[in-house]
Amino acid sequence: MTTETPAGSLEGRVELIHGAGGRAMAELIAAIFAPALANPYLAQGNDQASLPIPSGGRLVMSTDGAVVSPLFFPGGDIGALAVNGTVNDLAMAGAKPLYLSASFIIEEGFPLADLDRIARSMGAAAQAAGVVVVTGDTKVVERGKADGLFIATAGIGVVPFGIILSGDQAQPGDRVILSGSLGDHGVAILSQRENLTFATPLLSDCAAVSPLVAKMMAAAGPAIRLMRDPTRGGLAATLNELARQSGIGMSLEETAIPLKPAVTAACELLGLDPLTLANEGKLVAIVAPEAAESLIETMRAHPLGAEAAVIGTVVADERQLVRMRTALGGERIVDWLAGDQLPRIC
Amino acid sequence: MTTETPAGSLEGRVELIHGAGGRAMAELIAAIFAPALANPYLAQGNDQASLPIPSGGRLVMSTDGAVVSPLFFPGGDIGALAVNGTVNDLAMAGAKPLYLSASFIIEEGFPLADLDRIARSMGAAAQAAGVVVVTGDTKVVERGKADGLFIATAGIGVVPFGIILSGDQAQPGDRVILSGSLGDHGVAILSQRENLTFATPLLSDCAAVSPLVAKMMAAAGPAIRLMRDPTRGGLAATLNELARQSGIGMSLEETAIPLKPAVTAACELLGLDPLTLANEGKLVAIVAPEAAESLIETMRAHPLGAEAAVIGTVVADERQLVRMRTALGGERIVDWLAGDQLPRIC
Repeated sequence: MTTETPAGSLEGRVELIHGAGGRAMAELIAAIFAPALANPYLAQGNDQASLPIPSGGRLVMSTDGAVVSPLFFPGGDIGALAVNGTVNDLAMAGAKPLYLSASFIIEEGFPLADLDRIARSMGAAAQAAGVVVVTGDTKVVERGKADGLFIATAGIGVVPFGIILSGDQAQPGDRVILSGSLGDHGVAILSQRENLTFATPLLSDCAAVSPLVAKMMAAAGPAIRLMRDPTRGGLAATLNELARQSGIGMSLEETAIPLKPAVTAACELLGLDPLTLANEGKLVAIVAPEAAESLIETMRAHPLGAEAAVIGTVVADERQLVRMRTALGGERIVDWLAGDQLPRIC
Repeated sequence: MTTETPAGSLEGRVELIHGAGGRAMAELIAAIFAPALANPYLAQGNDQASLPIPSGGRLVMSTDGAVVSPLFFPGGDIGALAVNGTVNDLAMAGAKPLYLSASFIIEEGFPLADLDRIARSMGAAAQAAGVVVVTGDTKVVERGKADGLFIATAGIGVVPFGIILSGDQAQPGDRVILSGSLGDHGVAILSQRENLTFATPLLSDCAAVSPLVAKMMAAAGPAIRLMRDPTRGGLAATLNELARQSGIGMSLEETAIPLKPAVTAACELLGLDPLTLANEGKLVAIVAPEAAESLIETMRAHPLGAEAAVIGTVVADERQLVRMRTALGGERIVDWLAGDQLPRIC
């Protein structure tokens, strides 16, 4: 460091000069990102990080852009969401997430104190997930040309040789497992936007599922055909995607799907379908039938899988439909959502 | 694919539903991104890509957010810039760039035809650089909440064992090499914004320097202390950064720095300093003195290094100043820029 006083008073706001690649940017990084995300790779201080190559498997790479509004919500914020979104995409391949990058696009005038809070939330989320943010980029755009802050993360993980989880691996007879209650993130965001209050405060489920996935892979790795996290578009979009990729259909049991009372209430009040609401700390696993029950036991022993349940079965169906037997005993088709009921949910 | 007609007429515009994680997003990806960026890893169709682990070295990871305005400019566009920005950051470690991810943040109402043109430009840039875009993410924000399109890329490369290029490796006596003329990108963007015309049209130098770097590493690998691309903040910011990281000073020769006549003219007209203008296809290398002349020969044999020159020397200086002997025989200090003369240059 040179001897200048850092411009990094956290009472100020982000200015265009913070994105100009010069001294102000270096000071912003030193004041906010470096301490919040501290690790030896980031400390290399170059435009790229040099990392040991993981051994014993294949690389997995993923990326996620976080544009959630509002930036802070019950149970999380855009920083935790950006970390967990990419971590979870890596984990869905059965991978151990290792390294993240973070690209910040900041609107001029954004409060430095909020940026600091978000950076520290990213650091905490990364630590919880066992990953490090090894490199980053900061851009600032003029007032009115963005909406506070967007964060794009990318990540690398390693998956052991022999593990191939992919959306095209589901087979008729397989069981569909859901790790927990649906719609917590969607309703938490909605309640923040609409100023709704519940008797019991509802928090987003925003979390890294990688620790749960590690337990699942250890217990039943070869029996797991695929995993996917039901984020935007909810369970409905995820299962329809998988049905299309694998060329199969699914048959669900509505009564088996865990829902929190606040989510049920919000959906009834607002005419929403919990199957289309976003989740940020849940996963769907499709597994060989003989492994389902013991895998559920393994999942329930972990806090992130305490409500895990078999919610349906994969069936042969050329039309690739996802059908659900309803609580009332009828049947309905679970379709992708036609419109976007909640833009900028993640 | 199901039997629906794709919504992907390229005469339409991006709508919020294209970012909702459902069928419209799948169709947007199938209509635009999949054909433009086609490769077997992207075709896996999962939320992450499974990749062979490169052998024989260390991993390098980098990220770059592209927010350039305007999106199309003489010599390039935001798509090529997003690819080349990350490719070049990887190459500056002496790495062979391998895999990219791309995160798109799109403003509602953005023309699909422009998105298609940009995606194809990314595909062409990736092909030229020898990399593949293996995974992506698409978000759409409401009209007025972004500025058309932002793209964040991240990338992975591999650097052979024994090669450690880092900003802290410069030593007194080392030579400072610049690969070509300064400021072409900055002035190309400025001319587009301000509607300036030149007798000879000036194009951005937007390019992947990785092919040039491969030649340099093969010819002089162990003698190269570090490389860095002088993007935002220009040569001035880059050299000051390096001086600080290595704890040295530099002594430059102004007459040795290549400049195109149009850049000189624009700088005189507009009162800009070419040393602070952004470049997107240039590199600075700091090398052991005995290797400099033969490395210059190697660089000049490549189109991207045709104007390569030794522009200065590393000197011992506790104050870490970058000094330059001017064309008139005086000396000035080359400082970081105090303000942002050209916001959103990349």
